[in-house]
Amino acid sequence: MIQLEELKNLLSNCDENSMLTFVGNFKPYDLAICVEKLDRAEQLQLMRLLPPEISAEIMEYLEPILQYQILNHLEEYETSQVLNKMSGDVVADMMLAIHRHQAIKLLNLLPQDYRDKVLTLMTFPEHTAGSLATIDYIAAQSSWTIERTLQHIRKVGHDAEITSYVYVTGIKGELLDVVSLKRIILSEPQTRLEDIVIGEVISVPATMKQEEAAELLSRYDLVALPVVEVQNRLIGVITVDDLIDVIHEEATEDIHKLGGSQPLTDAYFKTSVFHLYRKRIVWLLILFVAEAYTGTVLRHYEETLSEVIALAFFVPLLIGTGGNTGTQTVSTLVRALAVGDVQFRDIFKVMRKEMTTGLLTGASISLIAYLRALFLGVESNVGLVVAITAMCIVIWASFVAAILPLILHKLKADPAVVSGPFITTLVDGTGLIIYFTIAKILLGL
Amino acid sequence: MIQLEELKNLLSNCDENSMLTFVGNFKPYDLAICVEKLDRAEQLQLMRLLPPEISAEIMEYLEPILQYQILNHLEEYETSQVLNKMSGDVVADMMLAIHRHQAIKLLNLLPQDYRDKVLTLMTFPEHTAGSLATIDYIAAQSSWTIERTLQHIRKVGHDAEITSYVYVTGIKGELLDVVSLKRIILSEPQTRLEDIVIGEVISVPATMKQEEAAELLSRYDLVALPVVEVQNRLIGVITVDDLIDVIHEEATEDIHKLGGSQPLTDAYFKTSVFHLYRKRIVWLLILFVAEAYTGTVLRHYEETLSEVIALAFFVPLLIGTGGNTGTQTVSTLVRALAVGDVQFRDIFKVMRKEMTTGLLTGASISLIAYLRALFLGVESNVGLVVAITAMCIVIWASFVAAILPLILHKLKADPAVVSGPFITTLVDGTGLIIYFTIAKILLGL
Repeated sequence: MIQLEELKNLLSNCDENSMLTFVGNFKPYDLAICVEKLDRAEQLQLMRLLPPEISAEIMEYLEPILQYQILNHLEEYETSQVLNKMSGDVVADMMLAIHRHQAIKLLNLLPQDYRDKVLTLMTFPEHTAGSLATIDYIAAQSSWTIERTLQHIRKVGHDAEITSYVYVTGIKGELLDVVSLKRIILSEPQTRLEDIVIGEVISVPATMKQEEAAELLSRYDLVALPVVEVQNRLIGVITVDDLIDVIHEEATEDIHKLGGSQPLTDAYFKTSVFHLYRKRIVWLLILFVAEAYTGTVLRHYEETLSEVIALAFFVPLLIGTGGNTGTQTVSTLVRALAVGDVQFRDIFKVMRKEMTTGLLTGASISLIAYLRALFLGVESNVGLVVAITAMCIVIWASFVAAILPLILHKLKADPAVVSGPFITTLVDGTGLIIYFTIAKILLGL
Repeated sequence: MIQLEELKNLLSNCDENSMLTFVGNFKPYDLAICVEKLDRAEQLQLMRLLPPEISAEIMEYLEPILQYQILNHLEEYETSQVLNKMSGDVVADMMLAIHRHQAIKLLNLLPQDYRDKVLTLMTFPEHTAGSLATIDYIAAQSSWTIERTLQHIRKVGHDAEITSYVYVTGIKGELLDVVSLKRIILSEPQTRLEDIVIGEVISVPATMKQEEAAELLSRYDLVALPVVEVQNRLIGVITVDDLIDVIHEEATEDIHKLGGSQPLTDAYFKTSVFHLYRKRIVWLLILFVAEAYTGTVLRHYEETLSEVIALAFFVPLLIGTGGNTGTQTVSTLVRALAVGDVQFRDIFKVMRKEMTTGLLTGASISLIAYLRALFLGVESNVGLVVAITAMCIVIWASFVAAILPLILHKLKADPAVVSGPFITTLVDGTGLIIYFTIAKILLGL
């Protein structure tokens, strides 16, 4: 980690050389973490001291608002230098995060063609493939020779973020193919690009959801994914690091949802208490109201309960076990759906698998439940009720938890809505009905 | 998707040309999915028909055992051709999955230097950076000129899997630096590598855990990660696609653990019912035994309960809400720990944040709980007990769920052990004690 104090000292001493040596030892990511902790004057001082390409790299790791605040305080020519070195998708994100007037002022500092590309990127809604695309890729025509392509790379390559591939486009800018830099190096100077291209290029439409793009990239082991618009026109390329961020975000979302709260979008400490409250209270209240139903069930069986008070001892145990079984099943299936291992058409296979597993776990739990009842010193009749209920509740929970995520997925709703707390609540009320029905029958109440 | 029937037809007609045209339309990943569904004779026929480099690419997506079964049924020279085109880390994984005698037979089909590298890779334990490294990278000496480096790339580049970077090594094979292919193309022929290298290269030791390597890669936006041994000797490079698989696996593991079961290692349908049973029953039984404690608590308060049977109505509601709150908090914090947003030293900040949030949610829930009690028609005294208990249980659950994952993390245990079901069970028993204590005091029992 960077010594924040040392950096602050060097900045206050205005010792440019030791400063640059010091900074040279660290990666832009580490410097960005540090920049967040400096005060505004120090941030500006550091940005002015560093070459614009390094400043731009650091900027890319900062939040859009902070990017703007720094750029806004720099001199106009400094701002334009840094802005020009930042990648198009990051600039577009920042523009969308700030006020329209501020954005226009900044856009005017960009050269015409770069500005147009940023404006295009700004039209794609958040969380789509288009919004992630960078415009700093290298394109070439299929009729070009290797020699001409290499000349082109030498001319435009300095600013390109996509460095391993050259995208082959047609006259109207339509994506035809892709060729790796390695392949170019290995080929003879007079070979034409059309003779060495990979064949079938994998691309995604700009409107595709970002998580689908991420899935495609990881399925086919790609390191960059070209993004196309109508008529297959190439508008940008998504780099693997942006899609790794998407994969992380999606997993975080699913984990939060499975935990029964709305997903947080920011890092933990950047989320305020009130925001945390709002994300949690919604589901907590919905579940509370649903769970309140257990009170109605219990009041309905008040008579049975007062006759055999021992039945009450096992209420938390039985519904708790049902909830646990349901949570296990739901988390397995929601994840299997997310990574594409399971689809709706598998519903009967899933049901069979989960209910057979439920039968096995139910039988094991049932046995232990009977022993526990005897150990608590209740009548053996009550013990039997508890054992049979345990079995039934486990199978019931497995069934519900197996089909609900699949049905939601089919309905194009997010299967992760069926969270652990959701399934627990559902099984609590219905589990009690199972319990008291079995009790009434077996105990003859 | 590939038409499996069409492929089977083409295979049975032995129509080589239409076969090759057909196959040419698909990616190795899609073909691999298909190969899994063919019978052995068809698999062999297909592999023989395809050029060895395509066969090898398909093989890389298959399970190690299936890889071996196919290779074992091919003629020796066919096997050696395909094996030679497969990447070192995949071959090493397969060797580790099969019997030692079988492995030796296959290893003997490899050229000496390739065999040695595979043997080195086989020495790294599963789930370490070393076990993921491919040996098919391009290395160069720092004193080489661009011209000489390009000659070298043209000589060895055809077999290299790592295609965007050249790794600069010293005399003893120690990793000195890295330079991108783009940078090489952009430089003058007489420039020496030492003059254009990136500087500070990020590498990982072979023994590093794979998830740590994945974190490093995603933090610094890299597309390949060199792996070194003692004395900084370069032994291989991890490609981004392997680390994306690791990121997926880690998220799956955490989701399964948070759902209260041991993580599955295979895809859903590849996991047998009995395996599923074994992964789930362990925690289910542990939690069942822990939850059985609620019976003891309830029996202890049997007298209170028979005096005011209405108290029983709210048992599932109160402990359920506590469990839900705990599950929300735990899932947020386990994920925050996994992505590095939170550390043990933040424990007091986390506690303050979670308990303030708990105070807010608790107050909201408390109000609704009071209304619910009145609506159920119980005495207003009981309503008060329920409302106060709701508040206390929510705060208690927030507290426990906030600190346990952090403490486990500190103890180098996996914080995801504190699953939703775990925290629910913990809060159930302790929540009941809170409930009846408040009841006894307020109702004067």
